Amino acid sequence: MIFRQLFEPETSTYTYLLGDEDSGQAVLIDPVAAMVDRDMAELAEHGLTLEYVLETHVHADHVAADNELRERTGCRVGVPEQSGVDCADFFVREGEPVEVGEIRIDPLYTPGHTDDSHCYVVGDWVFTGDTLLIDGCGRTDFQNGDSEALFDSVRNKLFTLPDQTLVFPGHDYKQRHVSMIAQEKARNPRLGLDNSGEDFLEIMANLDLPYPKRIDEAVPANRQCGRKAA
Amino acid sequence: MIFRQLFEPETSTYTYLLGDEDSGQAVLIDPVAAMVDRDMAELAEHGLTLEYVLETHVHADHVAADNELRERTGCRVGVPEQSGVDCADFFVREGEPVEVGEIRIDPLYTPGHTDDSHCYVVGDWVFTGDTLLIDGCGRTDFQNGDSEALFDSVRNKLFTLPDQTLVFPGHDYKQRHVSMIAQEKARNPRLGLDNSGEDFLEIMANLDLPYPKRIDEAVPANRQCGRKAA
Repeated sequence: MIFRQLFEPETSTYTYLLGDEDSGQAVLIDPVAAMVDRDMAELAEHGLTLEYVLETHVHADHVAADNELRERTGCRVGVPEQSGVDCADFFVREGEPVEVGEIRIDPLYTPGHTDDSHCYVVGDWVFTGDTLLIDGCGRTDFQNGDSEALFDSVRNKLFTLPDQTLVFPGHDYKQRHVSMIAQEKARNPRLGLDNSGEDFLEIMANLDLPYPKRIDEAVPANRQCGRKAA
Repeated sequence: MIFRQLFEPETSTYTYLLGDEDSGQAVLIDPVAAMVDRDMAELAEHGLTLEYVLETHVHADHVAADNELRERTGCRVGVPEQSGVDCADFFVREGEPVEVGEIRIDPLYTPGHTDDSHCYVVGDWVFTGDTLLIDGCGRTDFQNGDSEALFDSVRNKLFTLPDQTLVFPGHDYKQRHVSMIAQEKARNPRLGLDNSGEDFLEIMANLDLPYPKRIDEAVPANRQCGRKAA
């Protein structure tokens, strides 16, 4: 499998490219609008055709690249059913794997950061979007976030994956690239096994985060898969 | 490929089991004497025959399990040529890959922690022993350690591997399991690209570490691949 972890520095966002060498088919997870040219260059470099874009959630932190990628490649855009957007080509649902050549992608419904958040399991790897970050997790204070749901998603869904599962997050702000389920269980300061649900709710209620940059612009655009509002 | 990252808590040592599913052959990297029963159980669980033990260096921090594993499985023990031990079945040398079924293991000579240290490259992964740890590196103040050599090995050898190469270290003392070459380049506080060789030498000269536990017992035993001294 061809694998590329791609980084966008303004929002510290990871986009993942998975390519099946035999069929030449590829999928992008969580592309960023500003980086479509980069993503197109990666596809070309590896001789890949973009079959799918998958979103872990309708992002609040950047304007989705979906529409432009669809126009430039003819790919099909999959977003979580719960997002309510009407511009996707199909809905992602737990229990309905997406196949890209020989690569099988299993969506896991993990609400909490948003009510549409999904993670994507590919063999021994999991792409966790903003549900589980390295030593952290996404915020839950806007866009239908719910700390109790996040705790439940991580502890009762992600943490039931095999301990050795590699964790590839949707963001990292400290130049970390990869973790493991065992590592997050042991030392995630919010969600590690030493923390109770009550500990977690208290931590999340006291993060005191600033209002996110660009969200007033991003959310309406995301609902249109990146089309500019009229 | 079957892959197991196994942990020994007293010395915070990772042992790695790689198994080739088709041939049923396996290799252990850096086994620990106290954990031979665990390693044997892992081999049995996955239906694997131990073909090789490979050591990243003649350890100072635990008594090697090599002899017992050889007696129990008939495996062949490979150690770095520079170690000078006379109980190995073969010497590991850069440029001479070890093959375990379809798995190809490329030794890289990376002196510094000890003068015999090697890392093992397997596809997009590298097993770094004590040469490169997550956010750190092995000490260089005994057993022919050499800080200048370690800096050169990491910066001019490991850091020339592709950025996405997964780093599996020989130890971790903070419950971390995996890193990436890009991550260590960016944020290793000793060896990251922001540090000069002079910075590194100064850091290593001032670590003020205690004399290692059990080294007086371990080094003579290691020279005999774990046989008790007469």
